[in-house]
Amino acid sequence: MKLYHSPFSSNALKARVTAHHLGIEPELVTIDLAKGEQRRPEFMAVNPNGKVPVLVDDDFVLSESQAIMAYLADKTPGQTLYPTELRARAEVNKWMFWSANHWGPSISQINWERLVKKFLGMGEPDEAVVAKAVTMFHDFAKVLDSHLEKREWLVGNGVTLADIAVGCPLMVAVPAQLPLASYANLQAWFARVQELPAWKAVAPRG
Amino acid sequence: MKLYHSPFSSNALKARVTAHHLGIEPELVTIDLAKGEQRRPEFMAVNPNGKVPVLVDDDFVLSESQAIMAYLADKTPGQTLYPTELRARAEVNKWMFWSANHWGPSISQINWERLVKKFLGMGEPDEAVVAKAVTMFHDFAKVLDSHLEKREWLVGNGVTLADIAVGCPLMVAVPAQLPLASYANLQAWFARVQELPAWKAVAPRG
Repeated sequence: MKLYHSPFSSNALKARVTAHHLGIEPELVTIDLAKGEQRRPEFMAVNPNGKVPVLVDDDFVLSESQAIMAYLADKTPGQTLYPTELRARAEVNKWMFWSANHWGPSISQINWERLVKKFLGMGEPDEAVVAKAVTMFHDFAKVLDSHLEKREWLVGNGVTLADIAVGCPLMVAVPAQLPLASYANLQAWFARVQELPAWKAVAPRG
Repeated sequence: MKLYHSPFSSNALKARVTAHHLGIEPELVTIDLAKGEQRRPEFMAVNPNGKVPVLVDDDFVLSESQAIMAYLADKTPGQTLYPTELRARAEVNKWMFWSANHWGPSISQINWERLVKKFLGMGEPDEAVVAKAVTMFHDFAKVLDSHLEKREWLVGNGVTLADIAVGCPLMVAVPAQLPLASYANLQAWFARVQELPAWKAVAPRG
C-alpha cells in the first residue's frame, strides 16, 4: 500500500494514525503542498481533487481521509476502531461526519488565517474571518466538551475512528491558538488521544 | 421512527430520499429554520448542534445526515444503496465524504449568498464570497462530470447513497443559479437522480 500525504495535513494524519493503530505500514509519499505539488498533473492523475491523503492499495485508489480510515479498518480482521454493531457504527459515523461538516472547517479556517497565510507569504490574518470561525469553533467545542463529561472516548469504552477523526484537526491547537482553555473534558480527552502509541508514532511533535 | 427535518435543508432531503427508497416512513417533525426553532432549548436537547436532520429510532438519537443515511441502509436487510463489499462501500463512503468536505460547502455558500440572505432580510449577496465559492464549485463539478463520463451512477451499476449524498445539494441548482451549463454528464446524471421514485416523492418541486 502507498499513502500520499503531507506532514502539514490533519487529514493525512487521520489516515496515518489509523493505519499505524491497525498495524498497517503503507509506503509514504510526501506531497509538498507549499510547492503546489498537489495541483501538478502527475498527482492530479491520482486524485483529480488535488488533495491529500490518497491511499493506493494495489489497483484500488481511494481519496477522502475518512473513507480511507473506514476502508483500512474494514479490511482488518478483529479490529475494534470501527465497530460493526449497528448503533455503535452509526455513532462513529456521526462523529466522523461531525468532524467533516463542522469541527474540521472551523479549525481549518482559523489555521489558514493564523498560520498558513503567513507561511505562504499571503499577508496578515483577516480578523473578521478569524472572529467568525472562532465563534463557530466555540459552538462545536461546547458540544464536544459536554459529550465528554462522563466519557473517556467518544463512542463506547475505547478508542474508535471517531476519536481519530475529531482529534486530528487539533494537531494545530497550539500554533493556531485554538481557544481550548474553558473545555476541561475536551482537553483531558485530547491528552488521551495524544498518548495513543499510534499518535505518538506519527503525529508531529507539538 | 421520527425524523426532524426542514423542507429547505438539502441535508434533511438526503435522509428523506434514503428512507423513502428503503421503504421506511419516519414520522416527520418540521423545524422552522427561519423562525430559529433549531436553536430553541427543546430542539437543542435533541441535537445540541442545533441542526436538522435528526433521526430518533426508539431511544436512539442520531444526527449528521450522512450517518443517518448509512444507519437506515445498514438496518435494512437486502438493501443495495450501501454495498457491503469492501471496495464498493469504500467508494460510496468516498463520495459521501466528498460531498461533505467539498461539494456541499461550495454549493451552500452560493445558496446562502444568493437565496438565504435575501429570504432572511440579511441584504445583498457578497459578490466576492460568491465568486470564490463559484470557483470552488467549478473545481469539483469538473471532477464529478469527468467521473460520470462513462457511468450512469457514481458507484457500480445502480443508485447508491453516493448519488443521494451528491445529488441532494443540487436541489437549489435552479434558484441559486449554479453554473451547470458546461457539465453535460453531470446534468444527465442529476436528471436520473430526479427521476428516482424516492426523489419524486419527497423532493420539493424544482
